[in-house]
Amino acid sequence: MTDPTTDPTFDSFLDVAPESPFPIQNLPYGVFTPPEASSPRVGVAIGDQVLDLALLTENDLFSLSAIQQERPFSKSSLNAFMALGASVWQPVRERIHTLLRADTPPLRDTPSLQTQVLHDRDAVTMHLPVDVGDYTDFYSSEHHARNVGTMFRGPENALKPNWKHLPVGYHGRASSVILSDTNVRRPCGQTRPNDDEPPVYGPSRLLDFELEMGFFTGPGNSRETPIPIDEAPEHIFGFCLVNDWSARDIQGWEYVPLGPFLGKSFATTISPWIVPMAALTPFRVPSPEQDPTPLPYLQHEGDWAFDVDLEVDLQTENMTTPATICRSNFRHMYWTVCQQLAHHTVNGCNTRPGDLMASGTLSGPTESSYGSMLELSWRGENPIELPSGESRSFLEDGDRVVMRGHAQGDGYRVGFGTAEGTILPASCE
Amino acid sequence: MTDPTTDPTFDSFLDVAPESPFPIQNLPYGVFTPPEASSPRVGVAIGDQVLDLALLTENDLFSLSAIQQERPFSKSSLNAFMALGASVWQPVRERIHTLLRADTPPLRDTPSLQTQVLHDRDAVTMHLPVDVGDYTDFYSSEHHARNVGTMFRGPENALKPNWKHLPVGYHGRASSVILSDTNVRRPCGQTRPNDDEPPVYGPSRLLDFELEMGFFTGPGNSRETPIPIDEAPEHIFGFCLVNDWSARDIQGWEYVPLGPFLGKSFATTISPWIVPMAALTPFRVPSPEQDPTPLPYLQHEGDWAFDVDLEVDLQTENMTTPATICRSNFRHMYWTVCQQLAHHTVNGCNTRPGDLMASGTLSGPTESSYGSMLELSWRGENPIELPSGESRSFLEDGDRVVMRGHAQGDGYRVGFGTAEGTILPASCE
Repeated sequence: MTDPTTDPTFDSFLDVAPESPFPIQNLPYGVFTPPEASSPRVGVAIGDQVLDLALLTENDLFSLSAIQQERPFSKSSLNAFMALGASVWQPVRERIHTLLRADTPPLRDTPSLQTQVLHDRDAVTMHLPVDVGDYTDFYSSEHHARNVGTMFRGPENALKPNWKHLPVGYHGRASSVILSDTNVRRPCGQTRPNDDEPPVYGPSRLLDFELEMGFFTGPGNSRETPIPIDEAPEHIFGFCLVNDWSARDIQGWEYVPLGPFLGKSFATTISPWIVPMAALTPFRVPSPEQDPTPLPYLQHEGDWAFDVDLEVDLQTENMTTPATICRSNFRHMYWTVCQQLAHHTVNGCNTRPGDLMASGTLSGPTESSYGSMLELSWRGENPIELPSGESRSFLEDGDRVVMRGHAQGDGYRVGFGTAEGTILPASCE
Repeated sequence: MTDPTTDPTFDSFLDVAPESPFPIQNLPYGVFTPPEASSPRVGVAIGDQVLDLALLTENDLFSLSAIQQERPFSKSSLNAFMALGASVWQPVRERIHTLLRADTPPLRDTPSLQTQVLHDRDAVTMHLPVDVGDYTDFYSSEHHARNVGTMFRGPENALKPNWKHLPVGYHGRASSVILSDTNVRRPCGQTRPNDDEPPVYGPSRLLDFELEMGFFTGPGNSRETPIPIDEAPEHIFGFCLVNDWSARDIQGWEYVPLGPFLGKSFATTISPWIVPMAALTPFRVPSPEQDPTPLPYLQHEGDWAFDVDLEVDLQTENMTTPATICRSNFRHMYWTVCQQLAHHTVNGCNTRPGDLMASGTLSGPTESSYGSMLELSWRGENPIELPSGESRSFLEDGDRVVMRGHAQGDGYRVGFGTAEGTILPASCE
């Protein structure tokens, strides 16, 4: 292993519990405001604390000229840092790693500096970490695509003819991407519950989550200059959890022929900490086998799936503790993130720092790994039974959905925190 | 008529030809850099000149506190001005109108100020006027939807069941919205020319334009707070021409089931000048009759179609003058812009200053008014014959497409300038 930042033998001088999602091997980026401060800035989560990169910069602890000149950590989003590219991301990560290590003195032996640049994570206010430019949602889990296709078209026609030739995706709504722990109001809209009657207006009755992960791009490509698949990793800044909330009844009525629109655009929740690509490198596992072999622009070598355990917890208003209703994994992707990015840009489409590309619902092969209520309850035919004695086909008002993810190392975990939210009742006039 | 800014009896002290798109009744906003200046700023087109609003502000010619405090005209996009809302847009417009009128002295009688704040339009560099947040494309011309539906599904199934109940739309790609006169490279991508054979990679062979208009939103709504249809006009800043370039073969293979993606995201061209809603008010005509009556959230009174003549010119490399291949009108919309915006937000989706909402292809009822090559050549069955003796089913390399639009007043026109671009050859490896 040549990257010290992911070496499991290095510890931090700070106490980090083995089950903490944020050990020194992770170092995810977020945007926060410390207590008694007024301006958001960029930080890194370490154990139960947040390292303030803006103050580190002010204290001249980054010797990189790009950081000293651009001051990306004093901004209210990660976009400026994402724009600097991998040649800056990696030395910054190595510098942060060095500062936090147990065997290096600059921060360890300076308690006054520690007091200044380390904040209790519980005490800071987190913000949406990225000014999302464009948001793309893929559809890259074969299990999910087969499940949904089977429900609506039968098993013979479950996958459309294009599905195994290209990573199907669509443009989502960037404005309604929200930070974890923002509650989600049940949307109002137009649906047609009965095919023989006119459509009606009212609250969505089939509200759902979709368990996804996403990556943010940086620095991106200019228009007319596709990103070759072998260069795709350099344009992936990091990863987060994504809950692509979905109103199935609104979506089902609106989506032909131009795709999902209002069934999705009321809210998309992301986790607050962006885990760098480098932190996930030790958890890369073989890419999925693909048959048929894709076209050359989608072919690449190496291990480009990621072994990240995912789970979805549901807690109704009547439950005192949540119940885990789905256990899945980020590796359940037929198309890799590199293939997604190469395909996205093959037509000359430009990507910018802070564009979000989500995976699509990450359903696994077993029923307990399905990543949406639609699949878990099989369109409502088999409602989920909860420990409270309640059952659920779709989400009810007051239900809280919590997504978690982590890659398990030897004695440590690289975690993503949570993407969570509670359903508030609709307010349709 | 209560709004002096659209009164046809007022003239400017500047010479404006009757056929100019930019008389004093128009006053469209754009972003430009004057010759020998380095920073972009906001201006208004008047005849052959551009009025520099940043310099007007510096000269204390705007007494509005919002303008003095926010300095929106010194920005490189219109977003900050769009954010200020109709209560600022209208007095700013009235102030500019007053300054340019023949019967008011402040600018007319100060030649030194004129020299400073008026630039020759030919000499300035125009920029993309808006930092487009989210881009939505509707599908609101019934003629277009019927034409395309008839081609692919037959006349009985031309319109999908939802079409007359809601304004169908989808999310487009904001990053690849470009300024008029930016050339457009033929995209590479995956297509399946033969249904019995695997897909292939290469240049799009079915490259097309789509004649559209679009509006920009501002100030917009917060999440969970839909814009009621009667308030929609207050959130529409102004209008531009849109060419939604389309690669039909890429789109045809990719778009099921999640909608258009790479078939559109290589380029979307807009005209540089944004015509304010107020300038189009005299050209409002009765909204289309709608059967069935839409749901109450989509019902509104008043005239909400716009009588704006549109045309598309095509010039091949062998032609010395362009040929007009389409004459249409913005009034060929089944769904009004108010209905589009009310529908877009009914689920709680937030809109922001600078979001772009395009109409969809504005085909009219006659063959000569079809707004795309797909329709004009009827999928290639009836190629267009050009004066040069050439014919076209779709666009060839070197073809230049120029879209124009104007509303005809009594002795003046409120015009949109052009949205144009030339097709460059593909560069697929």
